[in-house]
Amino acid sequence: MTIGNELISGKTQDTNSSFIARQLHAQGWQTSVIMSVPDDEGAIQEGLNYIMSLSDAVVVTGGLGPTADDITTSAIARAFGLGIYSDQAALKHIRDRFEKFHLKWTANNEKQAQVPEGAETIKNSVGMAWGYSLKKDGKIIAVVPGVPSEVKRMVPDGIIPILRKEFRDAAGHVESRTIKLSGITEANVDQVLADVDFGSLGVNIGFYPNFPEIQIVLTAIAATEKDAKERIIVADERVSERLQQYIFAYDQDTLESIVAGLLTDKNLTLAVAESCTGGLVTDRLTDVPGSSAFLERGVIAYSNDCKADLLGVPEDVLKEFGAVSEKTAVSMAEGVRKLGKCNLGISTTGIAGPTGGTADKPVGTVFVALADETKTFCRHHTFRWDRWRNKTMMSQAALMMLKRYLTGELQHER
Amino acid sequence: MTIGNELISGKTQDTNSSFIARQLHAQGWQTSVIMSVPDDEGAIQEGLNYIMSLSDAVVVTGGLGPTADDITTSAIARAFGLGIYSDQAALKHIRDRFEKFHLKWTANNEKQAQVPEGAETIKNSVGMAWGYSLKKDGKIIAVVPGVPSEVKRMVPDGIIPILRKEFRDAAGHVESRTIKLSGITEANVDQVLADVDFGSLGVNIGFYPNFPEIQIVLTAIAATEKDAKERIIVADERVSERLQQYIFAYDQDTLESIVAGLLTDKNLTLAVAESCTGGLVTDRLTDVPGSSAFLERGVIAYSNDCKADLLGVPEDVLKEFGAVSEKTAVSMAEGVRKLGKCNLGISTTGIAGPTGGTADKPVGTVFVALADETKTFCRHHTFRWDRWRNKTMMSQAALMMLKRYLTGELQHER
Repeated sequence: MTIGNELISGKTQDTNSSFIARQLHAQGWQTSVIMSVPDDEGAIQEGLNYIMSLSDAVVVTGGLGPTADDITTSAIARAFGLGIYSDQAALKHIRDRFEKFHLKWTANNEKQAQVPEGAETIKNSVGMAWGYSLKKDGKIIAVVPGVPSEVKRMVPDGIIPILRKEFRDAAGHVESRTIKLSGITEANVDQVLADVDFGSLGVNIGFYPNFPEIQIVLTAIAATEKDAKERIIVADERVSERLQQYIFAYDQDTLESIVAGLLTDKNLTLAVAESCTGGLVTDRLTDVPGSSAFLERGVIAYSNDCKADLLGVPEDVLKEFGAVSEKTAVSMAEGVRKLGKCNLGISTTGIAGPTGGTADKPVGTVFVALADETKTFCRHHTFRWDRWRNKTMMSQAALMMLKRYLTGELQHER
Repeated sequence: MTIGNELISGKTQDTNSSFIARQLHAQGWQTSVIMSVPDDEGAIQEGLNYIMSLSDAVVVTGGLGPTADDITTSAIARAFGLGIYSDQAALKHIRDRFEKFHLKWTANNEKQAQVPEGAETIKNSVGMAWGYSLKKDGKIIAVVPGVPSEVKRMVPDGIIPILRKEFRDAAGHVESRTIKLSGITEANVDQVLADVDFGSLGVNIGFYPNFPEIQIVLTAIAATEKDAKERIIVADERVSERLQQYIFAYDQDTLESIVAGLLTDKNLTLAVAESCTGGLVTDRLTDVPGSSAFLERGVIAYSNDCKADLLGVPEDVLKEFGAVSEKTAVSMAEGVRKLGKCNLGISTTGIAGPTGGTADKPVGTVFVALADETKTFCRHHTFRWDRWRNKTMMSQAALMMLKRYLTGELQHER
């Protein structure tokens, strides 16, 4: 439960809930509900009642500040019929911080040391107000300030240990793996995996479309770490044997980080020629730190003049086949490779939309070509989105082609 | 209410709630609670009951996809004792999209056309599943898919009009204006506007940091449309007279759309030379439909070779002043303008990080230059973020410089 008028009005994006849910999930605990409520005593109390009717514990953030609208502690104390006292250690911590940072003391700061009777305090190493936890009818209520940087410290360091102590038996060992796919729809992933009984493998599977990717998340909870890990390995094999060609990364890796890693490891240089993607392919590659090791240059050939004079696309190819054609894409990839004196050249040419399509070449059409010293590959796709998403999918197709080339898969396609 | 296991597990950050809360807030309506629940029939139904006990309307997103775990419609229908039918117009929309984009039809996609009996459908111009609204005991339940890009269209275009019709008396006439600023922090905006009493102008003001911008949203609710509009105009003047130099767009416009519009209107052509921004400036400009009218080419000069051979940066400038210097930026802008035979050339050179900084030129340093036929301007900034945000801020600085040039402001700076 996150508390704050700024959350409920949409002024501030609540990132605490998502962070806390991930922390709980990693312990093998299930979040039953996430709720944001305003700085209002009734709303806080009703919300707490609702959550506690569904859950064994509730993590609360927000409303512990010094100002009059911060009323979380008094709302909670009154909900449970508890008095409030000023915790001397918490107060000393606040006074010490004021002194250390040469801040001017105002009386309302004392409020930040108040906790309900019977609460156990939770220290705050990165901010003012301490948090606290309460036990009520066998359920835990744990409260910390709403500042995201404080939540990021106090939840793992303060709240998770309290919950683990209380719910030790429920936790178990949790392992999870995220498998990232591109070039396939969520519905198709679902169909391809329909015959695998992940439940009997002791693994939970989830699909998360995360445009332009699909993510498959495998989670296993077992008595031992070894057991949980083994379950993940078996489930991953079931997924991989069916979807290998679409998988480009695991866990924290991205398509661009994988491509960058392969190029760097193989000591290859790359030049990029983009038309419809307008710089997005190069932009994504340069999001990876150290990309200057392999990226020599990019040319965004938006005009036919540029395609001809910089990349050497023959005028008659542009005239006969058009700027959006296999021949142009191939010529662009070969041209930019030569221009940059690189091992590899990659190119995109297509129609991002919303206008410019024809019956033959509808909006979303793209030709992607990849040239090395001896050969040039070209692939053709049609995407079905708005301009921004078409550009994104087109850049994805180019990076996937690079990845498949670098792993040797592209060379073996027919 | 946002529905999805990926939200409740913390796998995906829920951004829909915050967007919807802002949309409601801008209409003068108060959000009583924000709730995320898993793809679970009981959780959806209990959550709906709770929210409906507090509110006149509930906006629901998520769980309208084709796969087995998407159960929102059946959960809602059962909660209200309604049957489910396949809406023929919604089904035709989905089939048409499949045909248009040459997708392979699978039977589970029919599910996306199902709606509860008595529901009014809400069209989806940017995705597959339509939404719908229901009326129950005088309260509105409006449901749309959870894909953020679809929410961003269907809530303002579909749901807000339904709620306005239903709660006309509560709404009054609402006018709002979003003012977009760049190059200033939220805290500074707050300070600069501290002496303006927007309340006495009958206007609500909110600040929303939306990296790399700050948005100021003015909302007025009045008995007549004329009255509401006049209040906004007065409040806008108060903001503009204090913050003019940071304002780049209003409402739906973006920095790139403003720049693209100015270039097109003035019939000017542009060539871009990027180093540290790695294609992002050109990528952003080509996000605007019709950008081929002004954008001739871009060169991503990641290597010194490229800076020298394509853009004509003198070897001794690179040697003496370095690739990250005013002289290099100026030479890049002039060089790319000449190369593309354009009216304008713009360039970026800097250090995106995380490594590569020096005492003189720390990570985040960027030089941005803009050349026209007679003069070249150069500006220097230092940003303080991670690699991705530095690139974004650097591209923002380049586009802001173009905007200020095109409105004549840059020429009058000292």
